[in-house]
Amino acid sequence: MEHIQHLKCVKCGREHTADETLYTCLDCGIDGTLDVIYDMTVVAQRFLKHRWNQRQSAPTSIWRYLDLLPVQDTRYIPNLQIGWTPLYDCRDFAEQYSRQRGVTFPRYLCIKDDGRNPTASFKDRASAMAVVKAKELGKEVITCASTGNAASSLAGLAASMGITTYIFVPETAPTAKVAQLLMYGANVIMVKGSYDQAFDLCLQASDTWGWYSRNSGYNPYLGEGKKTAALEICEQLDWEVPDKVFVSVGDGCIIGGMWKGFCDLYELGMITRRPQMIGVQAEGANPLVTAFESGQAIRPVDHPTTLADSIAVGYPRDAAKALRAVRDSKGRMISVSDAQILDAMKTLARNTGVFAEPAGATAFAGLQKLAEQSLIDKDERVTVVVTGNGLKDIDTAIRTAGKPFLVEPDFASVQEIIATIRS
Amino acid sequence: MEHIQHLKCVKCGREHTADETLYTCLDCGIDGTLDVIYDMTVVAQRFLKHRWNQRQSAPTSIWRYLDLLPVQDTRYIPNLQIGWTPLYDCRDFAEQYSRQRGVTFPRYLCIKDDGRNPTASFKDRASAMAVVKAKELGKEVITCASTGNAASSLAGLAASMGITTYIFVPETAPTAKVAQLLMYGANVIMVKGSYDQAFDLCLQASDTWGWYSRNSGYNPYLGEGKKTAALEICEQLDWEVPDKVFVSVGDGCIIGGMWKGFCDLYELGMITRRPQMIGVQAEGANPLVTAFESGQAIRPVDHPTTLADSIAVGYPRDAAKALRAVRDSKGRMISVSDAQILDAMKTLARNTGVFAEPAGATAFAGLQKLAEQSLIDKDERVTVVVTGNGLKDIDTAIRTAGKPFLVEPDFASVQEIIATIRS
Repeated sequence: MEHIQHLKCVKCGREHTADETLYTCLDCGIDGTLDVIYDMTVVAQRFLKHRWNQRQSAPTSIWRYLDLLPVQDTRYIPNLQIGWTPLYDCRDFAEQYSRQRGVTFPRYLCIKDDGRNPTASFKDRASAMAVVKAKELGKEVITCASTGNAASSLAGLAASMGITTYIFVPETAPTAKVAQLLMYGANVIMVKGSYDQAFDLCLQASDTWGWYSRNSGYNPYLGEGKKTAALEICEQLDWEVPDKVFVSVGDGCIIGGMWKGFCDLYELGMITRRPQMIGVQAEGANPLVTAFESGQAIRPVDHPTTLADSIAVGYPRDAAKALRAVRDSKGRMISVSDAQILDAMKTLARNTGVFAEPAGATAFAGLQKLAEQSLIDKDERVTVVVTGNGLKDIDTAIRTAGKPFLVEPDFASVQEIIATIRS
Repeated sequence: MEHIQHLKCVKCGREHTADETLYTCLDCGIDGTLDVIYDMTVVAQRFLKHRWNQRQSAPTSIWRYLDLLPVQDTRYIPNLQIGWTPLYDCRDFAEQYSRQRGVTFPRYLCIKDDGRNPTASFKDRASAMAVVKAKELGKEVITCASTGNAASSLAGLAASMGITTYIFVPETAPTAKVAQLLMYGANVIMVKGSYDQAFDLCLQASDTWGWYSRNSGYNPYLGEGKKTAALEICEQLDWEVPDKVFVSVGDGCIIGGMWKGFCDLYELGMITRRPQMIGVQAEGANPLVTAFESGQAIRPVDHPTTLADSIAVGYPRDAAKALRAVRDSKGRMISVSDAQILDAMKTLARNTGVFAEPAGATAFAGLQKLAEQSLIDKDERVTVVVTGNGLKDIDTAIRTAGKPFLVEPDFASVQEIIATIRS
């Protein structure tokens, strides 16, 4: 991979070759997550803007950015079509929302629907990289710990490549996500404990049996998969960068990975500025908000509580990258309540047709909150990332969506109900 | 719409202008479903093969085939990205399957994953047309009856366009699908009866209140949306037509619509032959299989029973088009058991990474059945359409997928379990 220079520790800056470490910094250990650093001269030769614009036949997947990805062997690229998800122009909705709620809402609102990935979440971008790297290393087993989406994503992509998976989930993982990964044939270890405990057990298992670890905030290549969402947003906006990008935050890998994507493009000269990154956490699981606001180290939340299970993380594994993203971009971390998340789910589905799971709608809840506080300018260009499909957590949807009108199978009953609805 | 000639009754052949009838034949009534007939001279001028090949910048959605769609006003095209779903080349899996099960399996197997649509089912193709036509007609309300997917699809697309929906579902509709459409803000009328009763009540409501009807086997434009899957398959295969296309069948609209797509392309000279259409029904709801085999009229099944709720149809509303598709294409209708459907779900998910709902996997179950009966040739090119995402019916997935291994949060327990799994 002549376009990769080294893996650089986000904490101490130590540089490693890809052969020296598979996962984290040899000095800092588990907190020393690594960045993949490219030789931008080499990348630029392949990825020139004027040439790019002629590349309409590029794959409609994350592999259209192969020049900017740490892939050594393209034989191992999965068959499933990952990424290149729609970016919806929601200007009409934004105008209507502003009018109906009497708040200033960004005129140029775009929604990136990453629930459209193969296993219905953003995590497919990262799992794709994990599968490729495992294959390159000759590993036949991949393991991960996950609140759900990373797991079902890995299980699906690994299944399509004939790779065995051992997946550690906390017992709070939603039934739908667990069923999905069992369908994919994963070996599922459900830990009677928290996500954080599942994570630690998974690392031990990976060490003990030599399994390849697809763990967020640990494996340096996952963020490279995640950054593709940023690359797509820029290309889909014809290389016009949004002013603000809203992302829901649990471990912090997505916001960290996306920021890396904007930085890579900036360094390449493909974009002339970078967006402010707005990280949105649930109030009951917001250690990164606290750290951002206090300027101090992460203080883990012992019992994270939120209905947005995908971001119910007490000890965020990618804290350094997440905080760097919001600080360097002059963005911020904010919290929203579960009630605000539910409102965001309904608002999105009923106005844009995008049905998000709770964590998937959390970024939009953050935008709603900032708009209510008059912290959004009318002329801002805002992109909100929806990270997972609502079908992943139907129980929450059922609780919040209401009930159907039950009628006898005759038209008189129907007429009665319709009259009620219309009145 | 100068490229549309007329609407032609599938039963008696009577031709209607678009102004004469919104839905079915004025002579034959509800059984006289209509075909949209194009002036292929006009279409050909727009849609020439050599020109098409230069159109790499065409939208990655069904609207890339606008020249072959009955759209009058492109302002009403929904924002959501519909169609242009992946067609996966599954040759490796086919070879492995053949070896493992000791059966002849088609060498050139492709899976079309239509669970990747915005509301996670094939039905989005049809709902898109309904939304456009409703808008063109100035209708503010759309109604439909549905076992689930057509409903959630209509609800989602209508929500994104600010259209009100009244949706009639049978009480057997799966919770996930109902929750999805409630989230989209639809008015849901749950009928204490069958799909067929819900359908009749919906037609009465449409007549009574002048709502636009998005009912399968009734509204002539829906099939035009559905045919786009056939157009995509041909283009994705570089205009090489498969020998056989497997489609699951309930009302019969999808197979009928797709056949129309192949016929349109054939008439245009874009393809030189058409595939055999293989319709697959569930054993407990197979009136079209019976009609196909006996050569007699449809005999409705009073109590359709199958876990594949999306095709649990006793009185297929698009029987004429469905039977025409299999007869004219020299294909056939076959039945599969629920056990075969469950096996197909697992086989697909574990080998291709495509997680299908039961009805979505039914077409693949049909292929498995024909292969077991040695009725598939090794050199055949086969495309199987997966019509809906498995997340739509998690209950079935949970019942069939097994359970996770529950462990205490300590590594000794993990070691014990892993030893068990590996032994």
